[in-house]
Amino acid sequence: MAKIKVGVAGYGTIGQRLADGVALQADMELIGIADLAPTLSIRALCEKGMRYDLYLVEGADKKRFDALKIPISGSFYDLVGKVDIMLDASPGGVGERNKKLYEKNGVKAIFQGGEKNSVADVFFHGYANYEKGIGADYLKLTSCNTTGLIRAVDCLDRLYGLDRVAITIIRRVADPGDYHRGLTNALQIDKAPSHQAVDMMTIMPHVRATGILVHTPITHGHIITVVATAKNEKITKEKALKAFRQHPRIRVVSIEEGFLGNASLFKYARDLGNPRGDMYEIGLWEDSIVESGNDIMFAINIPQESVTIPETIDGIRAAIKMQLTREEGTGQTNKYLGIGKWL
Amino acid sequence: MAKIKVGVAGYGTIGQRLADGVALQADMELIGIADLAPTLSIRALCEKGMRYDLYLVEGADKKRFDALKIPISGSFYDLVGKVDIMLDASPGGVGERNKKLYEKNGVKAIFQGGEKNSVADVFFHGYANYEKGIGADYLKLTSCNTTGLIRAVDCLDRLYGLDRVAITIIRRVADPGDYHRGLTNALQIDKAPSHQAVDMMTIMPHVRATGILVHTPITHGHIITVVATAKNEKITKEKALKAFRQHPRIRVVSIEEGFLGNASLFKYARDLGNPRGDMYEIGLWEDSIVESGNDIMFAINIPQESVTIPETIDGIRAAIKMQLTREEGTGQTNKYLGIGKWL
Amino acid sequence: MAKIKVGVAGYGTIGQRLADGVALQADMELIGIADLAPTLSIRALCEKGMRYDLYLVEGADKKRFDALKIPISGSFYDLVGKVDIMLDASPGGVGERNKKLYEKNGVKAIFQGGEKNSVADVFFHGYANYEKGIGADYLKLTSCNTTGLIRAVDCLDRLYGLDRVAITIIRRVADPGDYHRGLTNALQIDKAPSHQAVDMMTIMPHVRATGILVHTPITHGHIITVVATAKNEKITKEKALKAFRQHPRIRVVSIEEGFLGNASLFKYARDLGNPRGDMYEIGLWEDSIVESGNDIMFAINIPQESVTIPETIDGIRAAIKMQLTREEGTGQTNKYLGIGKWL
Amino acid sequence: MAKIKVGVAGYGTIGQRLADGVALQADMELIGIADLAPTLSIRALCEKGMRYDLYLVEGADKKRFDALKIPISGSFYDLVGKVDIMLDASPGGVGERNKKLYEKNGVKAIFQGGEKNSVADVFFHGYANYEKGIGADYLKLTSCNTTGLIRAVDCLDRLYGLDRVAITIIRRVADPGDYHRGLTNALQIDKAPSHQAVDMMTIMPHVRATGILVHTPITHGHIITVVATAKNEKITKEKALKAFRQHPRIRVVSIEEGFLGNASLFKYARDLGNPRGDMYEIGLWEDSIVESGNDIMFAINIPQESVTIPETIDGIRAAIKMQLTREEGTGQTNKYLGIGKWL
Repeated sequence: MAKIKVGVAGYGTIGQRLADGVALQADMELIGIADLAPTLSIRALCEKGMRYDLYLVEGADKKRFDALKIPISGSFYDLVGKVDIMLDASPGGVGERNKKLYEKNGVKAIFQGGEKNSVADVFFHGYANYEKGIGADYLKLTSCNTTGLIRAVDCLDRLYGLDRVAITIIRRVADPGDYHRGLTNALQIDKAPSHQAVDMMTIMPHVRATGILVHTPITHGHIITVVATAKNEKITKEKALKAFRQHPRIRVVSIEEGFLGNASLFKYARDLGNPRGDMYEIGLWEDSIVESGNDIMFAINIPQESVTIPETIDGIRAAIKMQLTREEGTGQTNKYLGIGKWL
Repeated sequence: MAKIKVGVAGYGTIGQRLADGVALQADMELIGIADLAPTLSIRALCEKGMRYDLYLVEGADKKRFDALKIPISGSFYDLVGKVDIMLDASPGGVGERNKKLYEKNGVKAIFQGGEKNSVADVFFHGYANYEKGIGADYLKLTSCNTTGLIRAVDCLDRLYGLDRVAITIIRRVADPGDYHRGLTNALQIDKAPSHQAVDMMTIMPHVRATGILVHTPITHGHIITVVATAKNEKITKEKALKAFRQHPRIRVVSIEEGFLGNASLFKYARDLGNPRGDMYEIGLWEDSIVESGNDIMFAINIPQESVTIPETIDGIRAAIKMQLTREEGTGQTNKYLGIGKWL
Repeated sequence: MAKIKVGVAGYGTIGQRLADGVALQADMELIGIADLAPTLSIRALCEKGMRYDLYLVEGADKKRFDALKIPISGSFYDLVGKVDIMLDASPGGVGERNKKLYEKNGVKAIFQGGEKNSVADVFFHGYANYEKGIGADYLKLTSCNTTGLIRAVDCLDRLYGLDRVAITIIRRVADPGDYHRGLTNALQIDKAPSHQAVDMMTIMPHVRATGILVHTPITHGHIITVVATAKNEKITKEKALKAFRQHPRIRVVSIEEGFLGNASLFKYARDLGNPRGDMYEIGLWEDSIVESGNDIMFAINIPQESVTIPETIDGIRAAIKMQLTREEGTGQTNKYLGIGKWL
Repeated sequence: MAKIKVGVAGYGTIGQRLADGVALQADMELIGIADLAPTLSIRALCEKGMRYDLYLVEGADKKRFDALKIPISGSFYDLVGKVDIMLDASPGGVGERNKKLYEKNGVKAIFQGGEKNSVADVFFHGYANYEKGIGADYLKLTSCNTTGLIRAVDCLDRLYGLDRVAITIIRRVADPGDYHRGLTNALQIDKAPSHQAVDMMTIMPHVRATGILVHTPITHGHIITVVATAKNEKITKEKALKAFRQHPRIRVVSIEEGFLGNASLFKYARDLGNPRGDMYEIGLWEDSIVESGNDIMFAINIPQESVTIPETIDGIRAAIKMQLTREEGTGQTNKYLGIGKWL
């Protein structure tokens, strides 16, 4: 079978990682990336030798790239004309405009969490509703927090059946390298319920969800606490742990062994030698799991820069009908991304 | 009736505020404070004119005070000999040693959260178990988070009957002015369940509680999210709000009116002209309250430096039998501290 | 002599403190303050009993104030019609528009650092160029960093004659209570030279100045390091200390006595019982002063919320010709603000 | 020529990077690393497949390693017996104890900045005093700030001759992943002069230096501002830039191109794909360079985790007499580390 041809729009925090992730898939070919300006990320790409072809979106000033000797492979239109599917990681709202071009070219697309749900036919999560994405033209991926959260909730739900969850999102306020937003010595609270709880109910309508989100002045890794209430049976810590340990995209860690907080997971990923110090798995603290009646409570860590990459690649597999079941689709993604080898 | 004579051991973050609080009680007399070294707080006291008499604990070097012309009124022994009750806000562990002196002098005492529970006869909270403190010799107050949390939980429980609560404590990691501890670009998680959940069950054994605590790099005001499950009836947002609005030590605020996070509450207290920018009330965000089945979820703000002051003064009233009911005891404290005037 | 009638436009961080400062001047009368919306600061003013009359600027929605039972004394036009001088602490750019109204009413005004220099006849600092402000109609005050910096530099220059200074501003990035700006785990650098160095040369043209500014993720108190080179004589640490110690608006502190950083100064001001925990003086660390050849280097702390208040009030004295010399003008301000009593 | 055999004591933040750096040198062989406990870094090494042999220092509990299936190659004594030179990155003070073993085995060693100067024969910097290290048995490397600072100061000094420098160190307070130290909403100041200024004078005694250090609550990259005064000629911005641009271990960047602060440099290194997001070069902002009379002022960024690696490897070359001149020694190090390819 010919390799599926993939393009990436937007070479920012998410776009770079999508490109890297696709490049690792043996059954896909990364045709190129598209961006607007010679950002630091584009300059870094050039300094390392342009391993991806660069196309310019409308409004880009080619002279600025020429001045920096950054080679250009064509326009965004050219890129869209060459691919089977676009991964759109443009700034929020731009994806919707790009969609017209995708439609015109008969190209499928997967949008990131910054776009409105209406941009897509299916609001998608590789583990929770892979089947819905099969053959669909336009998918929108859940946001970083929702993607990671659903991994854990879906994992328990499939095994034990959940009635409801209440989440507290302790959100990192900015990405590393951000200066245009930040928070200094303040916790900021959003109106409840948080959109992540609402989004989860869209994907998993049989589980009631609510939640509160608090922004905190850090840059690496959200922490979410989850209070999950089972429908019937009591979910013990033992049962929960067993389920979590078998999930390839959940890495069970403990304070005991040195994972004292979100910064430990980033440090560990750096020490592993992972590019950019990224981690695809969410962390789940074994020693955070507590039972209270029929409720079970636990805490997870969401590596916000990289967590949506695997589920987005799952989306390609579903949309292109590369694999027809959730197990096969996510399994292939995991294999090529090296996820779960430590299990 | 003669005024109750009160002494304060330790003039740190809590001790200063206890002294200020007692000084406002028309039926109490602050005999003096005791400390070890000419800290910045003691220097500030001196610069403002020594409104409290200062006694020196064992090990203090009087020459250092003399060099700074800070007047000394006597030794810790002298102070203990003059009072009916001591409020002990010494560093953790020191209170236990001080207790021997209190016992020897037949003086009652209230310890703060840093001491072990075993130091006291009663683990005390003004609203939740005032009656248990009546006539007791040694009380230990709940810690700052637990004190504020119990206000809200007890408030709902008395009206509607709670079965269980699950809390997420988003903790400020250091006090303003601390350099010896801190956290930088990290969220640190504690082993669950958090001691606050366990402590709450000691005070309110009929409500099951569990929780997770995450330290965050800020200095002003913890935020706690609470998932509360009623025993029988459904607690609607309306019912909860009604209860919270009537509690003198809970200030219902909203994002809508500009309280965007914990920093807004500190700013507001500063703008009110409150000494040190302190606030005795916890904040409770109206627009954080959400229902989910029989659960109700909401977020509160704990002003960690000042929140335990009212309940500690309640403790004096209970221990000395100044007022014999919870309503009267807390009511007197509130009156003299100016709590609830805004209701 | 009749009291000078003063109004304050804008009741934000600076405006509140200007109002408080003017209210303390026995030879001035605060006629009122003007603002646009029922901000938290206005609500706090109301909760405490409206000690200042409130006037509404154009565009204000009176209904919002009525709904909160906040009494209104009239319009901005009414306020301007009643005063001799306006202190304009409106958001940057608004002062320039207001100026037309001031001119029309023959009312003098002092603008804060957010306005362009062109808004005023004189760029003013109470200690460095009081004489220039005498009788002027429109003054603009130096910004917070420049105000504090000039205190120290002018102090040395008058005694020993400076040739040049090179400054490093370690800037707090946001005020307490800010959420709209912030910085998280990043130091941000501005293009050099910093405007503060340039501004200082406008006020003190005989001293060459340059500097670099770095924003840091904290909210309380800038720190500036100053490398000052004398024209002729060597400025020893002893000489510098002697000069600094005699300046009423410089508080010499030391790491030795517990002032470990900027947070200690805020804590000390809170412990002093200063309203809002404010301090009018800059802090200057004795144990930061080092000599190197003819250079002397030292570090100061700038309490950004309150540092410009005394110099602004000096500006009233100059503009209205209340006192005709720098010594008398600043002396009266200091007397009423309680500055220097600790000397 | 046989490869030089190198061992690394301590596999912490610096030790890991020393191991990685040595492993890249074609004329050296990394025999192994030594550590005490199965830290997260050791676990990461194991998860990736033990690319370095691990030896256990005295006091290590082998059972803990066995339980985690981490293979052990022998004891610290075994390691020391196999090498020509040890790079000692043990916790401060431990290196001094280890030295006895090195002496006993006739093994040379290079200590990091945490040890006392007296531990070594030469206080070393690859660019500033390579010659002093030639053939020496025990070197101590300058600390991270001093190492980076000397690169820039030595660079100017060699070309233009410096009389003195005054530095302001805006220090990151903790490394990523640290929880045991931190700073929250505070700038902490050290007694002046900073040890870095003093250390620089030890290495470059002909240049007078002083400085002030302020700790800031960030984790990635110190910023230092330098005021340098030439002996004779005026150093223009143009001259300085020319010098800096030719230095392989200085990367000239600009705010203009997007390097807004220290976080941009870390982000750029991550985007380059550098292991751990590390960078060996210091950053130097072109648009921070300003002239003032004969003074020149500029700002540099110090990547604290990795900056000492090249100079430590230079130290091996000097101690072992692999290259006999500064140019050749640093040149070889640069070649194998890939430093300066972007020039």
